[in-house]
Amino acid sequence: MTMTTNDPRPDPIAQARDWLSDLFAPWVQALRLAPVAVGPDAVVLRLPFDESLCRVGGTLCGQALMSAADTAMVIAISAQLGEFRPMTTVSLTTSFMRPIAQGDALITARVIKPGRTLTFGEIEIASASDGKLAVHATTTYAML
Amino acid sequence: MTMTTNDPRPDPIAQARDWLSDLFAPWVQALRLAPVAVGPDAVVLRLPFDESLCRVGGTLCGQALMSAADTAMVIAISAQLGEFRPMTTVSLTTSFMRPIAQGDALITARVIKPGRTLTFGEIEIASASDGKLAVHATTTYAML
Amino acid sequence: MTMTTNDPRPDPIAQARDWLSDLFAPWVQALRLAPVAVGPDAVVLRLPFDESLCRVGGTLCGQALMSAADTAMVIAISAQLGEFRPMTTVSLTTSFMRPIAQGDALITARVIKPGRTLTFGEIEIASASDGKLAVHATTTYAML
Amino acid sequence: MTMTTNDPRPDPIAQARDWLSDLFAPWVQALRLAPVAVGPDAVVLRLPFDESLCRVGGTLCGQALMSAADTAMVIAISAQLGEFRPMTTVSLTTSFMRPIAQGDALITARVIKPGRTLTFGEIEIASASDGKLAVHATTTYAML
Repeated sequence: MTMTTNDPRPDPIAQARDWLSDLFAPWVQALRLAPVAVGPDAVVLRLPFDESLCRVGGTLCGQALMSAADTAMVIAISAQLGEFRPMTTVSLTTSFMRPIAQGDALITARVIKPGRTLTFGEIEIASASDGKLAVHATTTYAML
Repeated sequence: MTMTTNDPRPDPIAQARDWLSDLFAPWVQALRLAPVAVGPDAVVLRLPFDESLCRVGGTLCGQALMSAADTAMVIAISAQLGEFRPMTTVSLTTSFMRPIAQGDALITARVIKPGRTLTFGEIEIASASDGKLAVHATTTYAML
Repeated sequence: MTMTTNDPRPDPIAQARDWLSDLFAPWVQALRLAPVAVGPDAVVLRLPFDESLCRVGGTLCGQALMSAADTAMVIAISAQLGEFRPMTTVSLTTSFMRPIAQGDALITARVIKPGRTLTFGEIEIASASDGKLAVHATTTYAML
Repeated sequence: MTMTTNDPRPDPIAQARDWLSDLFAPWVQALRLAPVAVGPDAVVLRLPFDESLCRVGGTLCGQALMSAADTAMVIAISAQLGEFRPMTTVSLTTSFMRPIAQGDALITARVIKPGRTLTFGEIEIASASDGKLAVHATTTYAML
């Protein structure tokens, strides 16, 4: 990332893009998650629809949606902290409410209770085409 | 798959291998999950260690382990039924207890309560090198 | 409940109060949950602080808060349907983020995805004294 | 509790009975949970069937079963440590697989990964009359 201004605070979108390419496994990067909005309380990532992510039946596979949820939460926590700090997922509970077919997914991750040792978050995944909520997840992270 | 015998019952390992290559998204197939043991009550899959699955720090990423858990459960339910039937994950709760570094993961999925409409299962993921339990998950599937 | 008007639609608060006294176990009724707001999308119940609900340390015990969450969700689903229909909790995941000491708890339950066979919901419990979120829960119900 | 021997190690069953009467809210004690077996790796508690715990339909209410699960886990962690130490439930995920009607419930709680800061556990609840698994739960505790 090249910053051409003197602004000491990096562009949050660019920073999230850097985190996405630096912190995650290449297999996770193959999801091509892209930041749409990045703020201190919530971030929104886009998961581009791709045939390689579809299970039999043609809908986005649950594995990709769970992985996107976990990834988005790391970005949300980092964005709130203003930097990436080592952390590990303690638990992630995902509910699958509707399939997403033929369209991108929008992943919104929110820190609902930051903590020095444990941070709690919530993730919603909606279909970008109709806005309907498809997946809801809650998660706990241990800050290392 | 070529069956060269007249046995009407397919080899469970071969059948699981077929399911793994037919039912799941190409991105999930990139995990290269392989069946180790397939029975009516439980199945064991191996997730080969690979740098492409490692997050910063060099351990198998949680996204790959969750995805393996979900995938193994579909195989376990299908193995118990003796065939694949359409189903969808309703919820998956994953607890991450230990990292797995530098070694394969063994995923054991068990059907703990089969049902006509809802099936409940449990998944344990251990490090193949030391056998230690690393991940525990519980899940509910809707049979369609 | 005595209705003194000719309005064919019952008062939602009174209806919720009736459900709370008719549907739940006496041990659950001992929580003395009371409806504060009842709408088609969300309900709010109050759990009055009581020493009998406090664990060692003087905070409201997690068992009471989980039980209140589950109970509030039954009321929320019934309020959305306009009547009680037989249902059963499939799963409830509760995260405990902060203790609640010396004050009532407010339980907000929302149906996030109603369904013919499965209904998904979310529950937030806040301290009535400072409004801070203490507990977050997600749940799946099977409609019978 | 009166110890009439010189054995410095208390009887585990008696110790669990003491914890049950000392640590929990009076409302939780009304469940009348009783220790059946107490070992370093697992404990079994009995929840006596009682009309006061039954929801409409006559089965043991989910609230009582979740509360029993959480309570049993505190006893299991304490039994493994050999003493009660302050802890708090971080999350509890409960799956309800079968109702329990007209009979006691047996709650088996196991520590699956003890830790200095986080301890993970698993709880199974079976009907005492037929031994069938009715409830499965997983939980994370923070050791304070």
